[in-house]
Amino acid sequence: MPLLKLGIPKGSLQDATIDLFAQAGWRIAPHSRHYYPDIDDPDIQCSLLRAQEMARYVERGTLDLGLTGLDWILETEAEVEEICTLTYSKSSNRPSRWVLVVPEDSPVRSVSDLQDRKIATELVNFTRRYLTERGVDAEVEFSWGATEAKAVEGLVDAIVEITETGSTIRAHGLRIVEELLVTETRLVANHGAMRDPARRARIEQIAMMLQSALAARSKVALKCNVPAKRLDDVVELLPSLHAPTVSHLYDPQWLAVETIVDAAMVRDLIPQLRAAGAEGILEYELRKML
Amino acid sequence: MPLLKLGIPKGSLQDATIDLFAQAGWRIAPHSRHYYPDIDDPDIQCSLLRAQEMARYVERGTLDLGLTGLDWILETEAEVEEICTLTYSKSSNRPSRWVLVVPEDSPVRSVSDLQDRKIATELVNFTRRYLTERGVDAEVEFSWGATEAKAVEGLVDAIVEITETGSTIRAHGLRIVEELLVTETRLVANHGAMRDPARRARIEQIAMMLQSALAARSKVALKCNVPAKRLDDVVELLPSLHAPTVSHLYDPQWLAVETIVDAAMVRDLIPQLRAAGAEGILEYELRKML
Amino acid sequence: MPLLKLGIPKGSLQDATIDLFAQAGWRIAPHSRHYYPDIDDPDIQCSLLRAQEMARYVERGTLDLGLTGLDWILETEAEVEEICTLTYSKSSNRPSRWVLVVPEDSPVRSVSDLQDRKIATELVNFTRRYLTERGVDAEVEFSWGATEAKAVEGLVDAIVEITETGSTIRAHGLRIVEELLVTETRLVANHGAMRDPARRARIEQIAMMLQSALAARSKVALKCNVPAKRLDDVVELLPSLHAPTVSHLYDPQWLAVETIVDAAMVRDLIPQLRAAGAEGILEYELRKML
Amino acid sequence: MPLLKLGIPKGSLQDATIDLFAQAGWRIAPHSRHYYPDIDDPDIQCSLLRAQEMARYVERGTLDLGLTGLDWILETEAEVEEICTLTYSKSSNRPSRWVLVVPEDSPVRSVSDLQDRKIATELVNFTRRYLTERGVDAEVEFSWGATEAKAVEGLVDAIVEITETGSTIRAHGLRIVEELLVTETRLVANHGAMRDPARRARIEQIAMMLQSALAARSKVALKCNVPAKRLDDVVELLPSLHAPTVSHLYDPQWLAVETIVDAAMVRDLIPQLRAAGAEGILEYELRKML
Amino acid sequence: MPLLKLGIPKGSLQDATIDLFAQAGWRIAPHSRHYYPDIDDPDIQCSLLRAQEMARYVERGTLDLGLTGLDWILETEAEVEEICTLTYSKSSNRPSRWVLVVPEDSPVRSVSDLQDRKIATELVNFTRRYLTERGVDAEVEFSWGATEAKAVEGLVDAIVEITETGSTIRAHGLRIVEELLVTETRLVANHGAMRDPARRARIEQIAMMLQSALAARSKVALKCNVPAKRLDDVVELLPSLHAPTVSHLYDPQWLAVETIVDAAMVRDLIPQLRAAGAEGILEYELRKML
Amino acid sequence: MPLLKLGIPKGSLQDATIDLFAQAGWRIAPHSRHYYPDIDDPDIQCSLLRAQEMARYVERGTLDLGLTGLDWILETEAEVEEICTLTYSKSSNRPSRWVLVVPEDSPVRSVSDLQDRKIATELVNFTRRYLTERGVDAEVEFSWGATEAKAVEGLVDAIVEITETGSTIRAHGLRIVEELLVTETRLVANHGAMRDPARRARIEQIAMMLQSALAARSKVALKCNVPAKRLDDVVELLPSLHAPTVSHLYDPQWLAVETIVDAAMVRDLIPQLRAAGAEGILEYELRKML
Repeated sequence: MPLLKLGIPKGSLQDATIDLFAQAGWRIAPHSRHYYPDIDDPDIQCSLLRAQEMARYVERGTLDLGLTGLDWILETEAEVEEICTLTYSKSSNRPSRWVLVVPEDSPVRSVSDLQDRKIATELVNFTRRYLTERGVDAEVEFSWGATEAKAVEGLVDAIVEITETGSTIRAHGLRIVEELLVTETRLVANHGAMRDPARRARIEQIAMMLQSALAARSKVALKCNVPAKRLDDVVELLPSLHAPTVSHLYDPQWLAVETIVDAAMVRDLIPQLRAAGAEGILEYELRKML
Repeated sequence: MPLLKLGIPKGSLQDATIDLFAQAGWRIAPHSRHYYPDIDDPDIQCSLLRAQEMARYVERGTLDLGLTGLDWILETEAEVEEICTLTYSKSSNRPSRWVLVVPEDSPVRSVSDLQDRKIATELVNFTRRYLTERGVDAEVEFSWGATEAKAVEGLVDAIVEITETGSTIRAHGLRIVEELLVTETRLVANHGAMRDPARRARIEQIAMMLQSALAARSKVALKCNVPAKRLDDVVELLPSLHAPTVSHLYDPQWLAVETIVDAAMVRDLIPQLRAAGAEGILEYELRKML
Repeated sequence: MPLLKLGIPKGSLQDATIDLFAQAGWRIAPHSRHYYPDIDDPDIQCSLLRAQEMARYVERGTLDLGLTGLDWILETEAEVEEICTLTYSKSSNRPSRWVLVVPEDSPVRSVSDLQDRKIATELVNFTRRYLTERGVDAEVEFSWGATEAKAVEGLVDAIVEITETGSTIRAHGLRIVEELLVTETRLVANHGAMRDPARRARIEQIAMMLQSALAARSKVALKCNVPAKRLDDVVELLPSLHAPTVSHLYDPQWLAVETIVDAAMVRDLIPQLRAAGAEGILEYELRKML
Repeated sequence: MPLLKLGIPKGSLQDATIDLFAQAGWRIAPHSRHYYPDIDDPDIQCSLLRAQEMARYVERGTLDLGLTGLDWILETEAEVEEICTLTYSKSSNRPSRWVLVVPEDSPVRSVSDLQDRKIATELVNFTRRYLTERGVDAEVEFSWGATEAKAVEGLVDAIVEITETGSTIRAHGLRIVEELLVTETRLVANHGAMRDPARRARIEQIAMMLQSALAARSKVALKCNVPAKRLDDVVELLPSLHAPTVSHLYDPQWLAVETIVDAAMVRDLIPQLRAAGAEGILEYELRKML
Repeated sequence: MPLLKLGIPKGSLQDATIDLFAQAGWRIAPHSRHYYPDIDDPDIQCSLLRAQEMARYVERGTLDLGLTGLDWILETEAEVEEICTLTYSKSSNRPSRWVLVVPEDSPVRSVSDLQDRKIATELVNFTRRYLTERGVDAEVEFSWGATEAKAVEGLVDAIVEITETGSTIRAHGLRIVEELLVTETRLVANHGAMRDPARRARIEQIAMMLQSALAARSKVALKCNVPAKRLDDVVELLPSLHAPTVSHLYDPQWLAVETIVDAAMVRDLIPQLRAAGAEGILEYELRKML
Repeated sequence: MPLLKLGIPKGSLQDATIDLFAQAGWRIAPHSRHYYPDIDDPDIQCSLLRAQEMARYVERGTLDLGLTGLDWILETEAEVEEICTLTYSKSSNRPSRWVLVVPEDSPVRSVSDLQDRKIATELVNFTRRYLTERGVDAEVEFSWGATEAKAVEGLVDAIVEITETGSTIRAHGLRIVEELLVTETRLVANHGAMRDPARRARIEQIAMMLQSALAARSKVALKCNVPAKRLDDVVELLPSLHAPTVSHLYDPQWLAVETIVDAAMVRDLIPQLRAAGAEGILEYELRKML
């Protein structure tokens, strides 16, 4: 069987990605010296490379499959097949977004004020297209990092930078003018690989396992014991995705009820369950769910 | 609905507290620049501040609810309502306690020997009251840290310091004279907030979830398969908090038994269960239990 | 009851060993100052010491029980009773092995080419016996560390070194000639302790709990809901260690199936289960299994 | 001879202080376990303690001599003799100052606006006196740290905090209302110790050596060769503190000139010296100067 | 007077550059939050930015003066005036050079073998021009880092990477095909700034001070006492840059000789000086020399 | 010319040794991957290896020259030529010494009490010889580290361990019984290399430069200006190693005096010099002195 060539994003997402694959069922062990990371699946060969470059190598077929951000797919305009979105490893509760930023006291109030201005960003191609589509002609140049400092120090008129909460931007005395792009991690595949039935099956299996691992992170299993006569009151409170599992206790007056709910709603659900007569309420973590 | 203002202890307890809230159902994301930490509940506003100051701000109503130590509640004599005790994040198996410490070769053998002596401590008010109640008149002064060194170097006659095992104290050539206070973390609320039904309900919900998360840390779910005819032998071994959940296996000769036990007793219980005929014994972690 | 004296390996295995004991049911809290680590079992006294020395102290009876590597048992030729093998804390998916290593351009092609050569290793006694058994007379000397550098810099002709993947060895421009020993962690006991029924019972309890904790790491619980009429198709897919637990759902058309499988096979099993009609598939972690 | 008891500030100033003493001629070696630091002078005994507490122990005579900040001398109102000011270990080119700080959008514009407000600070006594002297009645409370966050989060109305450049304050969205105190490090002695001729001589020796080491840090020795006939042009450029040292070169047409100048003026002086005919210009560091 | 806008390279060269300016006579204090670094010269304003971008901002006049590598000047083809070369902060004794690298077993033996191959590098423009000048048509693409891994993992056919000793390259199983560019740090100025006499004078002053600080790092002052009658023997051994400084000792039989020599030759010179009768040989460091 | 093979001690002495060689005139740049460190002298080849093994490789001629401790020379009984003692890199003001240590409450009061006891040490051979010479028969075994813990935990009766101040030993509740060996760093050479004139000359050059660098660390140059008529008073105060250098100032009433003194005596000398009329006192560091 042909090897499936898989790209893992190097850097800030690396550890979170390896953890996600471990939960999904593949153990990846990176070496300290940049050789191929070891994976416990003889049909897969891993490479570690920067998210910025992933889509390019998947498009070209050097890799069959990779994880990268929507931002870098759009930046490189790589022709790849987007298999699914995978949301993990966020440091806050808010999405990552690329925003147009200027000094607090800048006259720039909207994208249209950027005509003939200088803009620094790591996302040069995307920013140029964004401005062109809005009829703005500006000089967009590549920033090798410390982009915020360039706006603070007046080296450029504006920057396009990634942020979650915007607090670092405000702390620098900068102001967000507008949001250009909300980004998130995507699993992308090479078109040729998807036409090959063997590799397509492996890609779909990997996508299914990664998604079931992620789904399990936002859900929990909830169990409780309910007096038989109050079963309906309890079941009514539970989300109706599926019928809960009901089983019999040693003490015949009681029934055991088990169901899957959003982790985030448990804090509100438990007091209601207790009011409805449930006892012995237990919450369990899940490793996979689909 | 009015916001509930919640204080999270900054410093050594911070990460453990954020972990506990995550298990209880609230995701708190601290910012690097001291703004309010982000919390995924629009009805709550978090502040990070030192345990020493928490009770004062809760008493005054600047905060509705906070976590702090019994030691700092007593030190500040703040008038707050103690909702519950929460024991988490201990580095050893022993409680934290404030002890009176002197050099190994000091003539001080009991609190009464401290008359007219100099004592350094971070817990000045509590120590003064403790001595006054025992009829001892001594000079108690605030120590900004490195308190043990002051006893070692002879800058003061005695210190009052916090310890778990006492091993650091002994390693400095110091001796514990007596224990003044055993401390632990408390959830405390403002009296006014508790008289407001809406905030009281939120406070009680938070207390219930934190307690159910902590309870889950010291319990495990135990499952096993038992030959139907030996069910009574097995059930007899199990703690009688609640009837265990019994269900039927595909193979009708066997029953499945599930119960909750103290994690610490499993190491002794499992050999007994095996002796009683149990097979396929499994232990699961819990995330909440109440 | 006599105390059981238990040796925990200090250094690279220490944290992993303490984690394993925690999962098995014993909380061990090391002190920063080399006193006996604290353990929450009044019948056990822990010592922390290097894996290299463990077997010697167990043989002599200074310890009743300890964890160490097969390599160091063979090196010291200590007379101890090997209770069980415990595989944990590997950084890669491959076993640890002691290999004979020479510079890439060395004429040495097999152990027999080592006649009259100089060899540096931390495993001196084992290496000498290995060579003697093969009729090779060479000078084997103790290396205090940085053993690979000695081969690179020509201080010796060959080294015997431990490795998992061999990548560090190759990165130094060195070559593996042959494998001398595959090693792994062993639980070893003093012969006298094993003849004492009380201590033997404790040793067997500890071994059982450690093994059940390790077994739980490579297995998961899998649950799913199955249409009653497709039960046989699903059960057929499941490994036949034990009959799965089947129970009834609130909706009588569906059955709940629960079983234990190798974590590593889930990634292949789930797609098959879905094809066979299973829904609501859930994977849970285990803490113990036996 | 009586020991001189010397207090070294623990914490952020510790390493810089030990370096300064090394340059001044005393080697201090701190132990890891809070015993007296070792010093290579049999007549001195060192203690390490917090700058905040230093003046109190010097006043009381537990120490004869110590280094601390003017801020903490004023805060504790300790009766000590100020021997000299020692400016070292600044991270910027600006002095440390305690400032009154409020949120950017606060109505507070001057100290007089603080009437009946709440203020948090580590410098409680000084702040209270400062306000009382200006006829302002406010509630000043001790802050255990993270003081800026208290202003940001609205726990108090204002804070009094130490800063050099103010950039952290502005980055938090806070505003400096006014400067209360410029502080710097002082060498302070006990009055009794200064009345004892033996200890007074040691204290003056230490002060002289510390000052000569600090003076050497801001000065450099400059040497150059000058054509004999242009000597006056060169000497005229040099600061007139002292006559420069002039000596003869092997080549009789040239003279060697050596002088001490401010390190900060060398960058402007050297081009002028070259224009005046100087060659072979050399700059040397100094270790002591007086 | 107009401010001189100076760019300091951010990142690996930053600390070494700040140290060099300190020795040259300017104290630069970077802030933690990317504002302009503080400099103790009211006529200069500093910015911190990446070496890769420096030449571009100097060309455009956003900066008057900056430090960057020859490699990045050539990469950006920026029109700037090269004031001088500054060699500092090398981790080995060898120059930094950009080399063409392939896997050990690649058929590529020279640049001409790269026709139609894929090459990854951070230095895209320079590499493209280098190939075009040699008539080679290849695909050169930007690498965001971990460039060596791309050659090891076969993502590209060759890379162009920077190295000093080549040992990391060899340790990855890669081979250097040829050297494309030896690089070093350059001080570059804007053409317009150089036409403005005031700024030109400041730029030349800065260049002179930086060069005199660097020169001082490779030279030392050597002093010795020589019997008057052996003066010629000693002077003959000394390098003839300048006549040494000779002065008279209190003891008239002896002369003092002082000279400046390469630090690297002292180890060979001292034994010769002793053989020639020199005594009391002393070596001093220099801070500036010109 | 034959290469001189030089061994540099790896580990705790490594950085201090490289610094010493830099001051002595050789730049050594260690690689991260254990190849030979780079040295800027084509006639020398460096190896990095543990101090424990150095003497063995020098004896055998694998190295010509190396730095190691007297303790390890005695432990290995290597036949090497001791060129000189080099004292550097001590963390306290006291010598390193190997001491016999027992628990505080042990009955062992002298070496003779060790008959038939168990002793753990890293210095096995030396300790065995030491005991045998004193007629004591004890079991001495190799300790792989954490030796103090073995005495604390009762695994052995006594240990032989290295210490400077003894404070760690006392902090463990242990007691020093007696001192076995004071150790320090030695430069050792191979006998054969010393018989080869070319290598002997290089070895002596290296020894001379290392010693002159070390000597320079404990001495300083002191300069001052003296009224011509008080010259004798000042000269009388100066140590009489050599006549001080006296030269004439531009102002003929003053003389310049320059001399070399122990750094440690400057703190006492300067007040005396001022009393004798000296002004403009300057202290300079030295880089080499001989």
